[in-house]
Amino acid sequence: MEELRVFAPATVANLSCGFDVLGCCLDSVGDEMIVRKNDLNKTRITKITGQDLPLDADQNVAGVAVNALLKDLEVQQGFDIEINKRIKPGSGIGSSAASSAGAVFAVNKLLGDPFDKTQLVSFAMKGELLASGNAHADNVAPALMGGFSLVRSYCPLEVLALPVPEDLRVVILHPLIEIKTRDSRSIIKQTVSLKSAINQWGNLAAFISALYTNDYDLLGRSLVDEIVEPVRSILIPYFRELKLLSQDCGALGFGISGSGPAVYALCRGDENAQKLKEEINIFYGKKGIDFELHVSKINREGVKIL
Amino acid sequence: MEELRVFAPATVANLSCGFDVLGCCLDSVGDEMIVRKNDLNKTRITKITGQDLPLDADQNVAGVAVNALLKDLEVQQGFDIEINKRIKPGSGIGSSAASSAGAVFAVNKLLGDPFDKTQLVSFAMKGELLASGNAHADNVAPALMGGFSLVRSYCPLEVLALPVPEDLRVVILHPLIEIKTRDSRSIIKQTVSLKSAINQWGNLAAFISALYTNDYDLLGRSLVDEIVEPVRSILIPYFRELKLLSQDCGALGFGISGSGPAVYALCRGDENAQKLKEEINIFYGKKGIDFELHVSKINREGVKIL
Repeated sequence: MEELRVFAPATVANLSCGFDVLGCCLDSVGDEMIVRKNDLNKTRITKITGQDLPLDADQNVAGVAVNALLKDLEVQQGFDIEINKRIKPGSGIGSSAASSAGAVFAVNKLLGDPFDKTQLVSFAMKGELLASGNAHADNVAPALMGGFSLVRSYCPLEVLALPVPEDLRVVILHPLIEIKTRDSRSIIKQTVSLKSAINQWGNLAAFISALYTNDYDLLGRSLVDEIVEPVRSILIPYFRELKLLSQDCGALGFGISGSGPAVYALCRGDENAQKLKEEINIFYGKKGIDFELHVSKINREGVKIL
Repeated sequence: MEELRVFAPATVANLSCGFDVLGCCLDSVGDEMIVRKNDLNKTRITKITGQDLPLDADQNVAGVAVNALLKDLEVQQGFDIEINKRIKPGSGIGSSAASSAGAVFAVNKLLGDPFDKTQLVSFAMKGELLASGNAHADNVAPALMGGFSLVRSYCPLEVLALPVPEDLRVVILHPLIEIKTRDSRSIIKQTVSLKSAINQWGNLAAFISALYTNDYDLLGRSLVDEIVEPVRSILIPYFRELKLLSQDCGALGFGISGSGPAVYALCRGDENAQKLKEEINIFYGKKGIDFELHVSKINREGVKIL
C-alpha cells in the first residue's frame, strides 16, 4: 500500500463537566487527507486546500505528529501529505487534532500498523503541542478512537473508550469570530473552590454512568460545568440566549466546544437535533455574525479510510 | 407488622477520588436495631447497648431521622428504637449513618413503605446533620441502597446506584484513636488547584467506567486522591506505611475511610483480602495502638431485615 485517503473528523473536547478529560468524535464534519509514501526520506506537506496553513512540515501539526511517530519507530521512510482542510483553525472543534490524527493514522496504516491507537494518540499530541502550546489529548483521542474518550491520566497516558448511546446527536454552532487562545486560556482561574470541584466530579461521574446505562435524562442533568463555562462563555456572543434556546428545544445539554467559540448541544434523536438547528439558524441569523451550523451523529469509528 | 429487627451496615464514604460523592456498603460490620410501634405517639430510644450514646430522641441520630420522616408523612405514630451499637462512633465507617439509615428503613417498612430509598436517604441525612453538622449523603445512601452510591447532586438530592464487581473485597482498619471532627475538617483546604481537580475527576470518571466493565486493574489505577488524602492522612498513624504494605500485598487501592481514622483497602478476591488483613495485623500489632480489623464483601442490599 503506497497511498491512503482518510477522513479526519472534527471533535468536541472539554465536554462541560469533563473539562480537559472528555471529548467526542463527530461524523459529518472533518478534513480529507491523502498520505503517500515518497522516496525522499522526509515528510512533506505537498498541498493544502481550504485554509491557509504552513507547508513547512516542522510548522504544520500533521508534519510534526508524523515525524514524532517516525522518530519513535526509527524507520527511514518519507511521506507526502495533502490536506483538504474543511475544519477552520481556531473553531473549537479540533481542527489541529484532525490533521494530526489523520496523518498519524494514515502513516501507521501505510507502515503496517506498528502502533495501537493509544500510541497514535501520544504522537498526535505533538501536533497539539505545536498548535496550542499544550499537548492535550481530549481532541486527538476521540479523533483517533471515535466515540467518547476519557483521558484518565497523562503520565502515563491512559485513554478510555466509553460507550455511545445510539440516539445521541450533536448540534454544533461555530460563530466565525476569533477568540485569541491567550484570552481563552488566561481567563480561566488556576484555583477552584473545593465545593465546585466536588459538584463537577459528581456530575462527570454521573455522565459516565449515563453513557453505560443509556440514560439520556441523566446525561442531560449531568452536563453541567460550573468551573470553566461561567468565565469562558462571556467570550461567546449570545451564549446565554443559545443555552436557553437549546433548553427550550429539549436539548439534553449545551456548552462550549473545546475552548470555543464553537458551542455544542447534545440532543436525543435526529428530529430534536434538526429542530434545534433550525431555531439556532433563525436566532443567530439575525445577529449579524457569520456562522457555520452542523448536526452530527457521534462517530464511533474515528479517523477512517475513504 | 408491629416490630422489625434490622441489620444496619457500616459504610465507606469519601472513597479516594470520589471525595464527598462516592461511598460503598459493607457486609460484615454493622449495628442491629429493633424498632417497634408504640402507643405513645412519640419516638423513643428505649435501649442502647455497646456504646454510650444519648437516649433523648432529639439528641440521637436515629430519633432525629425518624422524626423527620414522620413529620413529612404527617402520621401520628410512635416508635420505640433499640440499638445494639457495634460500629464505634468517630470511627470513619459511618456509625451515625448506620443508626439513621436503619431507623428510617425500619419505620418505613412498619408504615407500609410509603417512601422509596432516595426519600429515605434525605431523612437519614437529618441524622448526619445532627452528628457532624453536615447533612452529607455518602454514608447514608450506600447504607440504605447497598453497593456503591454516587451522590450526583444535593439540591435536588440525586443518588445513583452503581454496579458492584463480584470479586471486590474491602479490608478495613480502624485504629482506636480519636480524631476530632473539627481537626479533620479544618485541615482541608477550601480551594484546590484546577490541575488537581482535573486529575481527580479524570480518576473518578475512570473508576465509574471500571465498575461497569469489571476492570479491576483500572479500578486500582483510578483510586487516587490527590486533594484530601495528602493532608488528612497525616492525622492517621502509619498511613504511608499501611499504603505501601497494601500495594505490596496487591491491593487495588488504599485510602482514608470517611474522615478517618479508619482506612480501607479494596482487594480482588478473598485470598488477597485475607492476606492483607494478616499483614496489617502483624504490622499494626507492633505499634502500640489498639485497632479493629475487618474483611468485608460489598453489601449489595444495604439495610436488611433480620
